[in-house]
Amino acid sequence: MATTKFTVFKGDSNGKIVRDTTERVIKDDEVLVRITHSGLCGTDCHFRKAGVVLGHEGVGVVEAVGAGCTKRKVGEVVGWGYVHDTCNACHQCLSGNEVFCRKAQMFGFANTDQGSLGTHAVWKEAYLFLIPEALSPGNAAPLMCGGATVFGAIYNHGVKSTHTVGVVGIGGLGHLAIQFLAAMGCRVVVFSSTEDKREEAIRLGATDFYPTKGVETLEVERPLDYLLVTTSYLPNWSLYLDVMEKQGTVFPLTVANGTMEIPYFTFLQNGLRLVGSVVATRWVHNEMLQFAARHKIQAMIEEFPMTEEGITEAFDKLDAGKLRYRAVLVNN
Amino acid sequence: MATTKFTVFKGDSNGKIVRDTTERVIKDDEVLVRITHSGLCGTDCHFRKAGVVLGHEGVGVVEAVGAGCTKRKVGEVVGWGYVHDTCNACHQCLSGNEVFCRKAQMFGFANTDQGSLGTHAVWKEAYLFLIPEALSPGNAAPLMCGGATVFGAIYNHGVKSTHTVGVVGIGGLGHLAIQFLAAMGCRVVVFSSTEDKREEAIRLGATDFYPTKGVETLEVERPLDYLLVTTSYLPNWSLYLDVMEKQGTVFPLTVANGTMEIPYFTFLQNGLRLVGSVVATRWVHNEMLQFAARHKIQAMIEEFPMTEEGITEAFDKLDAGKLRYRAVLVNN
Repeated sequence: MATTKFTVFKGDSNGKIVRDTTERVIKDDEVLVRITHSGLCGTDCHFRKAGVVLGHEGVGVVEAVGAGCTKRKVGEVVGWGYVHDTCNACHQCLSGNEVFCRKAQMFGFANTDQGSLGTHAVWKEAYLFLIPEALSPGNAAPLMCGGATVFGAIYNHGVKSTHTVGVVGIGGLGHLAIQFLAAMGCRVVVFSSTEDKREEAIRLGATDFYPTKGVETLEVERPLDYLLVTTSYLPNWSLYLDVMEKQGTVFPLTVANGTMEIPYFTFLQNGLRLVGSVVATRWVHNEMLQFAARHKIQAMIEEFPMTEEGITEAFDKLDAGKLRYRAVLVNN
Repeated sequence: MATTKFTVFKGDSNGKIVRDTTERVIKDDEVLVRITHSGLCGTDCHFRKAGVVLGHEGVGVVEAVGAGCTKRKVGEVVGWGYVHDTCNACHQCLSGNEVFCRKAQMFGFANTDQGSLGTHAVWKEAYLFLIPEALSPGNAAPLMCGGATVFGAIYNHGVKSTHTVGVVGIGGLGHLAIQFLAAMGCRVVVFSSTEDKREEAIRLGATDFYPTKGVETLEVERPLDYLLVTTSYLPNWSLYLDVMEKQGTVFPLTVANGTMEIPYFTFLQNGLRLVGSVVATRWVHNEMLQFAARHKIQAMIEEFPMTEEGITEAFDKLDAGKLRYRAVLVNN
């Protein structure tokens, strides 16, 4: 078994980005990836002071494969996301819902000595995704978590091309959701705080655009069959629940703590559905990549060097809400 | 067109139950029903001071049919519930979800001069349900709203016989939910505040029983695929969300105002689904009646005379939480 040593980046207890190294043995079912690109996700902010290696939107080139690997080959471009491994025995794993495996090894909690911020990483072959040639590696990186999060919700819960689908927030997730939904033929209704992003939303595929700052009642042309909430904080629910179609489905995709305060009677009498959804299973993730390649879905990215300074700058811009729309760290 | 005059009962602005009369022309597509029984539902309490005729769990005998009626016949035993009529043209009506029609005529808001507390009522033939002979009219009455509310949720959202289904609260709705689920072959996990109803729950078909008063953490043998909340107030959500299977579905069936405060991260990371559900469409309502007849589902009722005094007594006992488990008003 080969041993390899590589550079990684983590946040210290003050959130300062620091360089470190880790050492890994490449096991039979594992692959060594040379990282070329990594997206930076809102969830990385939650772990910035946790002392774990950051990054879970990785893309890179296969540099070595373990003796038992049968799928990935040296030189292939691959990506990975939140989930590193699952038990392959529980109800969720055996029904193709492995992202809900209670023993899942996930970013932030498992394999904390490596991530996608670094020069390399070693992952189980079975949890790597082959990146289609039509997708550039830098644009593919934000699909590994941000893209998977919106695509998983859309794919798994019956969204049809005739549906009207709302997207709250145009950011790392929202700008991808708009493109996916438009490519699926949906009517895409975008809500953003101000008028600033109207033209861009339309260019990405939005059918309707509504600014929400200071608005107390929304009026939409058609009630929403689905709503994806992609903002970094939970919204004013009564604003949005009032424009849902009866039996409409709401996906709060925000990663946050605290309480979700739902106007109860509105929820009940309209037969609404609030659905928790996280990233995408491997099958759905692969479907997303094929779909993105076929429809030329383009993550809009800002590139930063994969260094302490580059990562810090990317975090600062993410924290300030100034990224349009995803930071991607690049190894030169 | 025949005209008919009959007695009805409503609450005045102080909630005092008073007798009144109304007069109706029986239109071509309408049926005159002589009321024999009416359940009393928690929702009636919400309308007790509204000056509307009360009751929406009616059962009676067809006394006359309009000239255009083709389905119901004089002498048949029929029931009706919350929904009196719908538009038959909107998305929800045309997809078989007429209980979500925005123009639905519903108890409390339409036809407020008649209800199921009275001697008679006149309803559209198309919104009456034929009561199977195997169901006694008094036991059928609580199915018209309480039964339909739990059966609709169970029927429409994929509950399977292999699932573990929780029921919070043993009352008008809960005691029917336990029976339906047991007859479907589910593992039924019942939560009640104290030990008082343990034996009855088991007798009704519960597999497991947990008292919840003073309990800070629940431990169940199997996580719950579904949970029906049937209490008259919303529960401590963190208690229950923690025992849900990943991607489990929660039906808060409580009729209440205010805010539903959901522990957000638990909801999100477990992929939970909160689903609003109201009564049952006519198709599902009829399926419920057939199912109840075939499986000898028995509403447990306490009978009161259909008089000002009887209705007042039934309300008092309902308000005090002392009914086991549904009051039924009876015309002698």
